Amino acid sequence: MNVPTLRWLDPPRGPAVALLDQTRLPAEEKVLTCETVPELVDAIRRLVVRGAPILGVAGAFGVALAACRGDDVAAAARLLCEARPTAVNLAWGTRRALAAYQAALGAPDPDQPDHDPQRSARDAALAEARAIAADDAGASAAMARHGLSLIPQGARVLTHCNTGSLVSAGGGTAFAVILAAHQAGRLARLWVDETRPLLQGARLTAYEAQRAGIDYAVLPDSAAGGLMASGEVDVVLTGADRIAADGSVANKVGTYSLAVLARYHDVPLVVVAPVSTIDFGTATGAEIVVEHRRPQEVTTLGGQVIAPAGSAAYNPAFDVTPSALVSALVTERGVTQPVTAGNLRLLCAPPPQRKSALTDVSMEL
Amino acid sequence: MNVPTLRWLDPPRGPAVALLDQTRLPAEEKVLTCETVPELVDAIRRLVVRGAPILGVAGAFGVALAACRGDDVAAAARLLCEARPTAVNLAWGTRRALAAYQAALGAPDPDQPDHDPQRSARDAALAEARAIAADDAGASAAMARHGLSLIPQGARVLTHCNTGSLVSAGGGTAFAVILAAHQAGRLARLWVDETRPLLQGARLTAYEAQRAGIDYAVLPDSAAGGLMASGEVDVVLTGADRIAADGSVANKVGTYSLAVLARYHDVPLVVVAPVSTIDFGTATGAEIVVEHRRPQEVTTLGGQVIAPAGSAAYNPAFDVTPSALVSALVTERGVTQPVTAGNLRLLCAPPPQRKSALTDVSMEL
Repeated sequence: MNVPTLRWLDPPRGPAVALLDQTRLPAEEKVLTCETVPELVDAIRRLVVRGAPILGVAGAFGVALAACRGDDVAAAARLLCEARPTAVNLAWGTRRALAAYQAALGAPDPDQPDHDPQRSARDAALAEARAIAADDAGASAAMARHGLSLIPQGARVLTHCNTGSLVSAGGGTAFAVILAAHQAGRLARLWVDETRPLLQGARLTAYEAQRAGIDYAVLPDSAAGGLMASGEVDVVLTGADRIAADGSVANKVGTYSLAVLARYHDVPLVVVAPVSTIDFGTATGAEIVVEHRRPQEVTTLGGQVIAPAGSAAYNPAFDVTPSALVSALVTERGVTQPVTAGNLRLLCAPPPQRKSALTDVSMEL
Repeated sequence: MNVPTLRWLDPPRGPAVALLDQTRLPAEEKVLTCETVPELVDAIRRLVVRGAPILGVAGAFGVALAACRGDDVAAAARLLCEARPTAVNLAWGTRRALAAYQAALGAPDPDQPDHDPQRSARDAALAEARAIAADDAGASAAMARHGLSLIPQGARVLTHCNTGSLVSAGGGTAFAVILAAHQAGRLARLWVDETRPLLQGARLTAYEAQRAGIDYAVLPDSAAGGLMASGEVDVVLTGADRIAADGSVANKVGTYSLAVLARYHDVPLVVVAPVSTIDFGTATGAEIVVEHRRPQEVTTLGGQVIAPAGSAAYNPAFDVTPSALVSALVTERGVTQPVTAGNLRLLCAPPPQRKSALTDVSMEL
């Protein structure tokens, strides 16, 4: 990437969060600079920045921004969390930075009598946001390494939505695995679902694939079934926006259709996501509240009307795929297979217990 | 419809075939007048007129146009057939008009010594085209009547592509059934797949639904799976572009994905098509040559670029659904269920044998 997806700007240019405006890609590389939390919230809502891991980073830098500006930081954190209610990483990153801020604020240093708690809290929030970004980059690299073990030589991979460096402070999730497969010479062809309505596949994944020199082709989402029937797909790789405690995966609308089609054609569906995507506060897929977005996203495209004026539209941002349709989950800690509530608990348990969940074998049958 | 889908113009305004330009809908109702066969062939190729039944009518009027102009009628018929190789009705209507033309040419009337064979052949081609249009309207009405028997009270119907009066000299195929259900007060909701890449659902089916006062919503094709999983779909209705002798259905790309999803969710998939769509010259679905269309249909929309320049695209016009995934076939002769090679033979056998195929019950298990 020539233009970074998200950048923190210190004074005098900041404090601000600079975002590569993903709604303008692939036509132009335009940077949007958010100098206030409401501007950042609006950008998150309009999908200027989108994708699970980078939303965690964006939320954390949003807290740092509020702290640097002297805003009500807790109120700003609430606003950030509410910008995209389904995106669990956004709330996770926001809360992590808020916790760092509040801890620093409440713990004056007795060795430094001239200690400025506001300043030290602001520094703590910013350091936490930077740490989240660094962790994300490290997690991407680990997911790429673990995921590669599931990609056969000469693989034809189908992917949905966009999961590369545009959604991450590192190489991303599913796309990081694809890139690793390409670099290892294992990738014969990347099939890119265009991913209606917002075309993140056609616009963004194709953009990332082209830059990486990957042999790719874009397809209408509805052509995936025929492609699988003709034996042209070896594995389906997607990201996840939220994973419930039972292993249900909320991800871009169309993921569930792909999962059913993949199962019907005996093609593995592999979900790649950091452990921060797993939300133990959501017991089952049925509890995931799916965000419904504006009908205009379906009935218009780039200002052009594609349905009669006044048409209603069904426009869920996500769908939920039950764990039984997910062949494997790749996280920065390894490959979890099969995806079950028990295996997810093992994966996220404290270190002594966690050890067994780090192996690449089936843990629960 | 205020503007007819296809109209024959006699002199002095013709001879010509006037087409409602479906590529301009729903933004504007523009009529394209084709005064030569190459103009008509180009219009067919560009999908100015599209959909199985009306293509049969268009092909027949194309032959009449060639005859009226004094062109090489056999050569014109070949051009017409080749305009859309997968559309069996196009070839069927074209050949029917050509046969009428050639029969009249070769059979001078001994009672009329001043008989003009060219003129009588031209009249025969035109009469045959008009008969095909009338038959099509009658078939639509019969399909609507038979199909209605499969629609439960309060049905939420999902449909794909466009199959109404825009594709027929009558009310169409699947949409004729939907309209009959609406008029009978049985239709609770119509779900309209937008049908990428050319958006025939969002543009054309929504246009027809809105005019008919149907409660409808457009959805991204990839959202159909989630919709079925949430129990919001009672039946899927589609048309067909070609049905092989084994009952395999070639139809707009995405039909196969819907068929797999419908089966997985135990939702019936009903195909509505006139018997002229059944091609006994094609033994199995595997023999159907799927037309691959220009990548630009996927990578651009209305001139707007939606993927990076130079992106390859997988853009099949059709996919093939095996008969095992089709719950029932509705033709003008009744409901065929299950769809098997034997039942299709019975359906299309000469009258004495055919009788039993007219019943609405299972014939072969």
